[in-house]
Amino acid sequence: MTVMMKAKEAADLVYEAVRTRVEQLNGKGVRPQLAALLVDGDPASAYYAQAKRKVADKLGVQFQLHTFDKNVSEKQVLDLIDRLNKDPEVHGMMLELPLPDHLNTPAIVKSVSPAKDIDGITPDNKLATITGEIGLYPATPQACIRLLKHYGYRLAGKHVVLVGRGQTVGLPLFHMLQREQATVTVCHSRTPDIGAHLRHADIAFVAVGRPETVNRHLVHSELVVIDAGINEGDNGRMIGDVAQDVAEHVAAITPVPGGVGTLTTALLFENLLKAVDIQLQARGGEL
Amino acid sequence: MTVMMKAKEAADLVYEAVRTRVEQLNGKGVRPQLAALLVDGDPASAYYAQAKRKVADKLGVQFQLHTFDKNVSEKQVLDLIDRLNKDPEVHGMMLELPLPDHLNTPAIVKSVSPAKDIDGITPDNKLATITGEIGLYPATPQACIRLLKHYGYRLAGKHVVLVGRGQTVGLPLFHMLQREQATVTVCHSRTPDIGAHLRHADIAFVAVGRPETVNRHLVHSELVVIDAGINEGDNGRMIGDVAQDVAEHVAAITPVPGGVGTLTTALLFENLLKAVDIQLQARGGEL
Repeated sequence: MTVMMKAKEAADLVYEAVRTRVEQLNGKGVRPQLAALLVDGDPASAYYAQAKRKVADKLGVQFQLHTFDKNVSEKQVLDLIDRLNKDPEVHGMMLELPLPDHLNTPAIVKSVSPAKDIDGITPDNKLATITGEIGLYPATPQACIRLLKHYGYRLAGKHVVLVGRGQTVGLPLFHMLQREQATVTVCHSRTPDIGAHLRHADIAFVAVGRPETVNRHLVHSELVVIDAGINEGDNGRMIGDVAQDVAEHVAAITPVPGGVGTLTTALLFENLLKAVDIQLQARGGEL
Repeated sequence: MTVMMKAKEAADLVYEAVRTRVEQLNGKGVRPQLAALLVDGDPASAYYAQAKRKVADKLGVQFQLHTFDKNVSEKQVLDLIDRLNKDPEVHGMMLELPLPDHLNTPAIVKSVSPAKDIDGITPDNKLATITGEIGLYPATPQACIRLLKHYGYRLAGKHVVLVGRGQTVGLPLFHMLQREQATVTVCHSRTPDIGAHLRHADIAFVAVGRPETVNRHLVHSELVVIDAGINEGDNGRMIGDVAQDVAEHVAAITPVPGGVGTLTTALLFENLLKAVDIQLQARGGEL
């Protein structure tokens, strides 16, 4: 019987801890606040921003949504980020990516204060993720590892195959897996036979951003699979990078939806509280 | 018959190109100059510094050796580096590591101008090595890949096992191998059975800094082995990370000495010329 590694329980544990900490901070006069920046035009981004508002409301987290017209100038975006960087009442910032083509995304990302960058997208936090120094790490690779551990699997000494080496998930995940003492093989679009590697693996992380990259012919019955893919399938249905029928041919797998993505949202709020701590410490206080 | 991948020919090609470029630069009034910083106490470091002087002399490269007493203060070292950073006649700097314990090595390394850091040890160049941006990459991992290619082996689509994940060689090598489109497995001290991974590998890079980490029971007859180890064996003899008798059981292997280390020295001078270019471009000139 395949173990379906649903994320709800692990996410609820995170939310429970966040809610408790928010109340504690409120009692000391600190009201954690998240600002999301959205540029009109990408329906998925608008959906995700609204989803975050709902979660924020449940957790007692203050939430600002800044929506720009699709023709917004780069200066307008940079001015808002500058204002939010300086506002001591705002603790975390989320840029809903992708931005329209006329905006210089790297320049805009770089302008976000690393201490408020709760999705770990700034160069400073990317480097911290690589080196293991203190910082705000991206939420999706964190969710991949947390979900696996929630189900009792260990990484130290295990042979892990990582399919995908993108800047957002694969590459930071590789470095986190190193620190977990796994032996990692990184497969990608130029790997001639991914199945040859998966055949010897204990655990597979799949983060390529393409549906059905891993199918049932590539896996084995003892494999544990973490699917970090979020793709739009037929009828707007959300599907992963792993084909549906793989579930019947492995030991355990994360569902999509209800897996990595679900825990990722929760960990964004955990990162917000980490950001609060970083900012309070920088001001010499501690709560 | 095992191919012994000696480095002399590849190194000579580099030296030939360096000599030609140095003459060309001299003709335009630029005299490439390398400054080595040595703190007394480590006999190996003193040996390496003198070896670089000999090569510099042969190439027509100016060479300054700054030798400090073993009780030198951090301020004295930082003051010299500051002076060398500002000196337009000095194009490259080499810190002979390790430094004595009373000196803060990371702070001293960080003080070197990235544009003159020809061994790629500053944080800026380490990050450039990871991301593939322009910079001065560390010479040893470059030498590993260059030597392999010199002997006609290709990396794209190959399964590479990298044994070791240190900051100096393993980690930068991993990122360079990614850009070469290899499928890389990173083994380390917590990998239970390195042989299980080598068994399926086309090419192995070994950079752990411990003699005989790879022995003949772990390899196979089609394997190509690059040994980046430089260890002191009995009677001060230089030995690699791969046991001597492995050579009889693989398709090709780099010797120690006469392999990766030999090409590394040459690539330091190639980096010096890259540093000259970076500095001339920064001043708006080009030669």
